[in-house]
Amino acid sequence: MDAIGIEKFGIMRPTLRDVLAKLDTNGEGRQSYSLIEKLYPICRSITGDGVRQSLRLLQDTVPMEVREVPTGTHVFDWTVPNEWNICDGYIKNSAGKRVVDFQRCNLHVLNYSAPVRQKMSLAELRPHLFTLPDKPDWIPYRTSYYRETWGFCLSHREFEQLEEGTYEVCIDSTLKSGHLTYGEHRKQGNTDDEVLISCHSCHPSLCNDNLSGMVTAARLARLLDGVSLRYSYRFLWIPGTIGSITWLARNEANLARIKHGLVLSCVGDSGPFNYKRSRQGGAEVDRAVEHVLRHSDHDFKMLEFTPYGYDERQYCSPGINLPVGSFMRTPNGCYAQYHTSADDLTFVTPSALGESLLLLLRIIQVLEENGCYMNLNPKCEPQLGRRGLYRQMGGVTHAAAREMAMLWILNLSDGQHDLLDIAFRSGIPFDQISQAAYLLREVGLLGPDA
Amino acid sequence: MDAIGIEKFGIMRPTLRDVLAKLDTNGEGRQSYSLIEKLYPICRSITGDGVRQSLRLLQDTVPMEVREVPTGTHVFDWTVPNEWNICDGYIKNSAGKRVVDFQRCNLHVLNYSAPVRQKMSLAELRPHLFTLPDKPDWIPYRTSYYRETWGFCLSHREFEQLEEGTYEVCIDSTLKSGHLTYGEHRKQGNTDDEVLISCHSCHPSLCNDNLSGMVTAARLARLLDGVSLRYSYRFLWIPGTIGSITWLARNEANLARIKHGLVLSCVGDSGPFNYKRSRQGGAEVDRAVEHVLRHSDHDFKMLEFTPYGYDERQYCSPGINLPVGSFMRTPNGCYAQYHTSADDLTFVTPSALGESLLLLLRIIQVLEENGCYMNLNPKCEPQLGRRGLYRQMGGVTHAAAREMAMLWILNLSDGQHDLLDIAFRSGIPFDQISQAAYLLREVGLLGPDA
Amino acid sequence: MDAIGIEKFGIMRPTLRDVLAKLDTNGEGRQSYSLIEKLYPICRSITGDGVRQSLRLLQDTVPMEVREVPTGTHVFDWTVPNEWNICDGYIKNSAGKRVVDFQRCNLHVLNYSAPVRQKMSLAELRPHLFTLPDKPDWIPYRTSYYRETWGFCLSHREFEQLEEGTYEVCIDSTLKSGHLTYGEHRKQGNTDDEVLISCHSCHPSLCNDNLSGMVTAARLARLLDGVSLRYSYRFLWIPGTIGSITWLARNEANLARIKHGLVLSCVGDSGPFNYKRSRQGGAEVDRAVEHVLRHSDHDFKMLEFTPYGYDERQYCSPGINLPVGSFMRTPNGCYAQYHTSADDLTFVTPSALGESLLLLLRIIQVLEENGCYMNLNPKCEPQLGRRGLYRQMGGVTHAAAREMAMLWILNLSDGQHDLLDIAFRSGIPFDQISQAAYLLREVGLLGPDA
Repeated sequence: MDAIGIEKFGIMRPTLRDVLAKLDTNGEGRQSYSLIEKLYPICRSITGDGVRQSLRLLQDTVPMEVREVPTGTHVFDWTVPNEWNICDGYIKNSAGKRVVDFQRCNLHVLNYSAPVRQKMSLAELRPHLFTLPDKPDWIPYRTSYYRETWGFCLSHREFEQLEEGTYEVCIDSTLKSGHLTYGEHRKQGNTDDEVLISCHSCHPSLCNDNLSGMVTAARLARLLDGVSLRYSYRFLWIPGTIGSITWLARNEANLARIKHGLVLSCVGDSGPFNYKRSRQGGAEVDRAVEHVLRHSDHDFKMLEFTPYGYDERQYCSPGINLPVGSFMRTPNGCYAQYHTSADDLTFVTPSALGESLLLLLRIIQVLEENGCYMNLNPKCEPQLGRRGLYRQMGGVTHAAAREMAMLWILNLSDGQHDLLDIAFRSGIPFDQISQAAYLLREVGLLGPDA
Repeated sequence: MDAIGIEKFGIMRPTLRDVLAKLDTNGEGRQSYSLIEKLYPICRSITGDGVRQSLRLLQDTVPMEVREVPTGTHVFDWTVPNEWNICDGYIKNSAGKRVVDFQRCNLHVLNYSAPVRQKMSLAELRPHLFTLPDKPDWIPYRTSYYRETWGFCLSHREFEQLEEGTYEVCIDSTLKSGHLTYGEHRKQGNTDDEVLISCHSCHPSLCNDNLSGMVTAARLARLLDGVSLRYSYRFLWIPGTIGSITWLARNEANLARIKHGLVLSCVGDSGPFNYKRSRQGGAEVDRAVEHVLRHSDHDFKMLEFTPYGYDERQYCSPGINLPVGSFMRTPNGCYAQYHTSADDLTFVTPSALGESLLLLLRIIQVLEENGCYMNLNPKCEPQLGRRGLYRQMGGVTHAAAREMAMLWILNLSDGQHDLLDIAFRSGIPFDQISQAAYLLREVGLLGPDA
Repeated sequence: MDAIGIEKFGIMRPTLRDVLAKLDTNGEGRQSYSLIEKLYPICRSITGDGVRQSLRLLQDTVPMEVREVPTGTHVFDWTVPNEWNICDGYIKNSAGKRVVDFQRCNLHVLNYSAPVRQKMSLAELRPHLFTLPDKPDWIPYRTSYYRETWGFCLSHREFEQLEEGTYEVCIDSTLKSGHLTYGEHRKQGNTDDEVLISCHSCHPSLCNDNLSGMVTAARLARLLDGVSLRYSYRFLWIPGTIGSITWLARNEANLARIKHGLVLSCVGDSGPFNYKRSRQGGAEVDRAVEHVLRHSDHDFKMLEFTPYGYDERQYCSPGINLPVGSFMRTPNGCYAQYHTSADDLTFVTPSALGESLLLLLRIIQVLEENGCYMNLNPKCEPQLGRRGLYRQMGGVTHAAAREMAMLWILNLSDGQHDLLDIAFRSGIPFDQISQAAYLLREVGLLGPDA
């Protein structure tokens, strides 16, 4: 159906169908993976240079704006916190050997730790140490954003080898007035109605959660670049919770423009897809994702909204209530490696990243092409045959797929059903419905919903 | 409940209950079957003398009007086509032997074929031959109504035996201005509200599809003749698609009178019942059929509306949207014999035809007796006992069926539930609900819905 | 969450939470059982001294009002019947031996029998004898309230041993103008909105049906005595059917005050719980019971409303339509002992009675604490951490139960969902939701629904 992509006036720009037609899913997955490799070593947090460095790196892929919001700014019920930066962190034993070392893995330092430099006994040190006794080889990821303290995370096996003695503890961090940093990229479409793509950018060396989301958003933005699209697309790379709250507070006046939204996280593992519906539950984006997942070859689950998870918590708070769902493979908390050092470069794969990107493009295609039309000849079927749209030979057992798509569209285009409804009801993939609707519009049998 | 049938004023006419009480289902089935035997040899199409001859034959059963609509008449988006008539058709081999012969089976000629008389090689003939390679003994049924061409249908086995050589091809048909012919019969009831019974009459020698529907409609009309009925009943024998479009276009002003409707097809095979809901989905006729099928001994399926099938496609187009469902045994396309020479006199049976007729009468009974009433004593239960409507002895474990029916009616007759709802909700057969409602009306506990 | 129980002003009264916290379920069950033992021998009917004696006995537990309504009073479609009293009843054989004796078991006399004193042959006697051939050792319970007759009930084994001969039949009863007697107890709450607890008090020596209901209502009333409650509670001990009709007719003007209601019957056997929904189906009381049963350790079934059973028939008649469900263990007609002499002191148990009482208190707790609130900070999540309501350490896999309860409440408190909805939707027990809502109200994040 290339015709759908041809613009009648102006310079011809590629369409989303063109993008999908020539998409090298594996190649895209490898690009995403290689971006993750570059971002992995950086120590990110909700504020600080780690975030800035990460966004700069993503700017090679997509020309995002980097926004800086000063510490102390009031954003709804919250206040932008101090900026955190860290150079080093370690625990040295009495022999002067670094037994826990930030330089080897930034998860070792409790994220957002206050600075400390002190000697202490093992007994004094212990309350500041965090381990996972039932996963003894992995380092946990822990944070303390809103209570000033310090700490170290280490594998339980390392912890058990600590002997009595005096330890030298050092966290060379700063925690002071500065900025909260986030990335924003907007692609203007043919209308000002927006699709929001949001991901959290505050996790340090964790690949699936959420380097996978950060790079997939960036690759998606790059793929849409220069493409002729109906919607405008807004991409956000923001620290979890405080980032989305900050962005919502600063953009409250324009939220009505957001027609659909997706939070991207955990899209790099090899598990089945999980989509958590928006709070609205049956929003167009919820139906679009369900349709695409149903017609994919992947296992998937549609999850009901719950007020826990990622930034959909804020987008779907009752006073905001945007149609924003959460697109994931294995959800937060549902894989053993979640929030541990095992969420590393071996846990995410190029092919999983590529598949996620492909499905996101298909979801966007549905959103772009969906619409509610009117059958302009609603009294009995129109004679499709004389318009070259129906087989000439009668008596065959089953109608051709394209004919069925046209009959469904004509029957249900009464102003009550959009094309996505018709795709669900008929069981026909949206793509075929959309192409058949195009043909019907071309011959004047289908018109815009008044 | 004979009393229900007694009219207070005027001459006493039999009621539907009387008809049902004395129905000889097997005898009716045999009558239907013998009508099929008479109609089977005739070569019908969407126009022409085959249709006229068939309707004349049905007039022995029911005094229908035969309507003639001139070629070229505009009916919504369509135009009434030329009239087609055929005397003969054959393919002779070089020895002069008829290897394909319309006289043996009218399916051999592509229905609506243009005339042809020509000699040609097998290679030239082949594109005009239609077979069913995976059902090698059966002749397919094919049509070409809206593209002028000619062709022959034959068994694949016959086809394979054709040797190279010169063939003489003859189709002695005419395709010219004339009329589209359909049958219509209306029985006036106590009100002008109508029940529509429609069947397609355009198929040649095919028994289940749709001689079964044609004869069942005729027998049903005959059984209702002279019976005291609330609704008026309109029966249509029309060519598929163009026939219903023609009728709808000619009767558009009166469509609001049609309160319920059924398309009859494929009601003569021995399969389970299948009812395809109207586009409205939960119309009274849809609920009535579901109730009757549930309380029958037959397997059945309720199918959702789809915009493919028979004339329900037109009755349920969005600008018409009548509450018309499709009553079938095995649906079109779901039996191997469909649209082949194997849909013959062995495929339909008198007992299957009789069962279909019986269920149709029961459906009509539900439509006739259904209604929405008001409990006139809605505060607490009325004392049924002093009206002779309740057992005198208390303490028994279960209420009698009639008492339960009355309690359900009294409890739900609040203007929101019709008797059919109450039958569904209570699980009690409609017939018992209807009788109990009659008793409650007689003692003044139930009144018309305001 | 003791704080919920603390009243800010006035004398501190115990709360329902206090009552539940210190409830001795087994002890309560034993108290109920011992009350049943006292009531069991009394011959109750829909009117008469048996009822009066029973209510007097219950007054030791709860200070109820005993109401007397004169014979002949019109109550909706009914009339209060004669008062029935009985001293003795027997059948003597020709040897003068009492072969059927009211003194041994009051079920032997057909309840509400007219007086009789007569000699007759076995043939004449037989139409007045009622047995259960398939349960040959049990005496049936039968009544004849609205047709004046007399009769005896006996085991089928006794019946078969009756020899030909002359029998002396005596029923020393009176059936004359008097009163219908019922018990009523109202506990004023903080509001005039009422919860109705109703049970039938007309059955003679039958333990589960309905001495179990009568004593459970009395024990429940006693437990609520002196407790600080939002609702007022009205308890009724009334004869079945005529009693609820009488009460409804006399109190029609105040029915709007009844916000929730339960009919109690058959709550003493050891079967699973069965709750029959009110006619409204999804009333708050229906949802409250379902929630409590789901979160109990008991098997249970939620039954749809049917217009048969106990006094819910009247409370849920279409012109009354109160939100009154029926709380039972094994329902009427679903146990073999139902309405027979085998529904005796061995069929009900202290532990079953105690469990029923405990669940009723939990249901009342839900009704008392349920409400619809507004999130006063609906734009994004409020910062629970700075209010001490959220963990300080981030990164853990799952939110704490209390945090989840708060997030659910904040997300759904938009005026469309009450706490019970939120409990259902989140799967969190109501008790935890209610406590979390209390905390959120205390810190000003949750306010009353405008």
